[in-house]
Amino acid sequence: MRVVALAGGVGGAKLAHGLAMALAPQDLAVIVNTGDDFDHLGLRICPDVDTVTYTLAGIANPETGWGIAGDTFEFLAASGRLGAPSWFRIGDRDLATHVERTRRLAAGQSLTEATRAVAAALDARHPVLPMSDDPVRTLVETDEGTLEFQEYFVARGCEPRVTGFRFAGVDSAQPSQEAVAALSAAELVVLCPSNPFVSLGPILALAGVKDLIAARPAIAVSPIVGGEALKGPAAKMLLELGLDVSAEAVARLYQGLVGGFVLDKLDGRQEPAVAALGMNTLVTDTVMRSDSGRRRLADAVLAFAGGVKPAHTGAG
Amino acid sequence: MRVVALAGGVGGAKLAHGLAMALAPQDLAVIVNTGDDFDHLGLRICPDVDTVTYTLAGIANPETGWGIAGDTFEFLAASGRLGAPSWFRIGDRDLATHVERTRRLAAGQSLTEATRAVAAALDARHPVLPMSDDPVRTLVETDEGTLEFQEYFVARGCEPRVTGFRFAGVDSAQPSQEAVAALSAAELVVLCPSNPFVSLGPILALAGVKDLIAARPAIAVSPIVGGEALKGPAAKMLLELGLDVSAEAVARLYQGLVGGFVLDKLDGRQEPAVAALGMNTLVTDTVMRSDSGRRRLADAVLAFAGGVKPAHTGAG
Repeated sequence: MRVVALAGGVGGAKLAHGLAMALAPQDLAVIVNTGDDFDHLGLRICPDVDTVTYTLAGIANPETGWGIAGDTFEFLAASGRLGAPSWFRIGDRDLATHVERTRRLAAGQSLTEATRAVAAALDARHPVLPMSDDPVRTLVETDEGTLEFQEYFVARGCEPRVTGFRFAGVDSAQPSQEAVAALSAAELVVLCPSNPFVSLGPILALAGVKDLIAARPAIAVSPIVGGEALKGPAAKMLLELGLDVSAEAVARLYQGLVGGFVLDKLDGRQEPAVAALGMNTLVTDTVMRSDSGRRRLADAVLAFAGGVKPAHTGAG
Repeated sequence: MRVVALAGGVGGAKLAHGLAMALAPQDLAVIVNTGDDFDHLGLRICPDVDTVTYTLAGIANPETGWGIAGDTFEFLAASGRLGAPSWFRIGDRDLATHVERTRRLAAGQSLTEATRAVAAALDARHPVLPMSDDPVRTLVETDEGTLEFQEYFVARGCEPRVTGFRFAGVDSAQPSQEAVAALSAAELVVLCPSNPFVSLGPILALAGVKDLIAARPAIAVSPIVGGEALKGPAAKMLLELGLDVSAEAVARLYQGLVGGFVLDKLDGRQEPAVAALGMNTLVTDTVMRSDSGRRRLADAVLAFAGGVKPAHTGAG
């Protein structure tokens, strides 16, 4: 089965890794959010692309989810002493990725090409596809004004109250050719348990992406478990936007897009409500505590896929 | 006494440091070669400026002369794994300087301004002045063709046989305003024991610099001791250019430019020949094995200055 996974940060990367354990490189591509990419210290930084790449390469820091296991921070400390901003924590080995990517982009390569080169060097065997080679910037609208995503997420620790989101540039940005080709060939699309607003939202906002997903079997895995987000601000965002902090509320966001939805066993009571949205449902343990947990969830999703129909059965 | 030191790499930085121990910040400026600056991994790297800055700041690596004492090389190893060239050894802390400089240059600062900011953050108290804010590239002409300086020096280990030098851009480059102002106000100019061809050569090739030096008391310290260069390719270059490998041969290169010349005590027999060039001479221990050796040589040079006249006594 040819599968495309859509992923943002840590949670998404874990399920992508589980799928990579289950599927050959030619049968899985991971399309990754680039809305939180930014320029910092003169370098192009792509946090979600790197998290997915490092996770697939088996070198991700298991404690933080971001960065490289065992990395050191000598550069960051020295950079701070020189007066450069140090709120974004870049490890010495991680920095090599940013420098190499920036160098390749400056030499005229696309982000897709630069990502492919880094992934190959790190032995990440499955394609990691940035959602677009064009710039898209996630802006978080808050009670303190509009913030760049990293400013909101890292510098401000998700503290300001969210009122909405914008993806600057998304109207003129195109999904990458590679992403479109992967989606067009996909027999299953998996929306990983990433933040629906700021991780998958930018991917889904790109022209044509929703139609490509809705036209084929697609499954979303809830990032909300037992009324909480395992990581990141998804629960806080749902709350501040006046939505329930529940798997069901996430399922409503994906109505008309996916035919299948996976809830955690803690949220089994919400299954009828999700089924009432016209989705097939699977209730299982979605918390990936280890590599075997990632593989187990991936296998469960792939087994579930057989009974899932496209959300749009018409032309799409 | 207001002093300007001209310096290239390691040996020059050591005497500059000795002078900095002897003189207040307002009484010493160090003009530094930028001919071996280059772009690498998308970063602007200024090896001589950094060597002088780190040496004045007291953080230079005493074993190598370049880089920062105790630096680590995690970035370099990771960068090499990504396929980036790793022949130029950048430490993790050293890298912060290159990133910060590149960021400041990209933001429109001059190299002089960026250097001032880095030096201030590192507590180098005496002004470190890049010779020019305009690009000058030292090219080494060899029996294997023309090589960029770092390619010759680091990547090829000074192996190719030298036939000459060119300083690309030097005809249109201007010495920095700060360097001209410092030279114009100087009561003494010290040509540190740096390579006369590739360290001091680019500085002296800038428009007007030689005239400014020749018009005031100036002293050169021989980088050749006992027929050898203490560090770097100066001896090899003299030999390949058909010159003697001697202090006297270096003095001839500076004839008409400096009125005073310092020879090592190992080279005392050459003193009459140097004096015959019309220079005052000082014979002393020029080998700086420790901080106190740097200070001792600096004090000797400053004491010697009283008897040194400008090489040009006319209008200059």
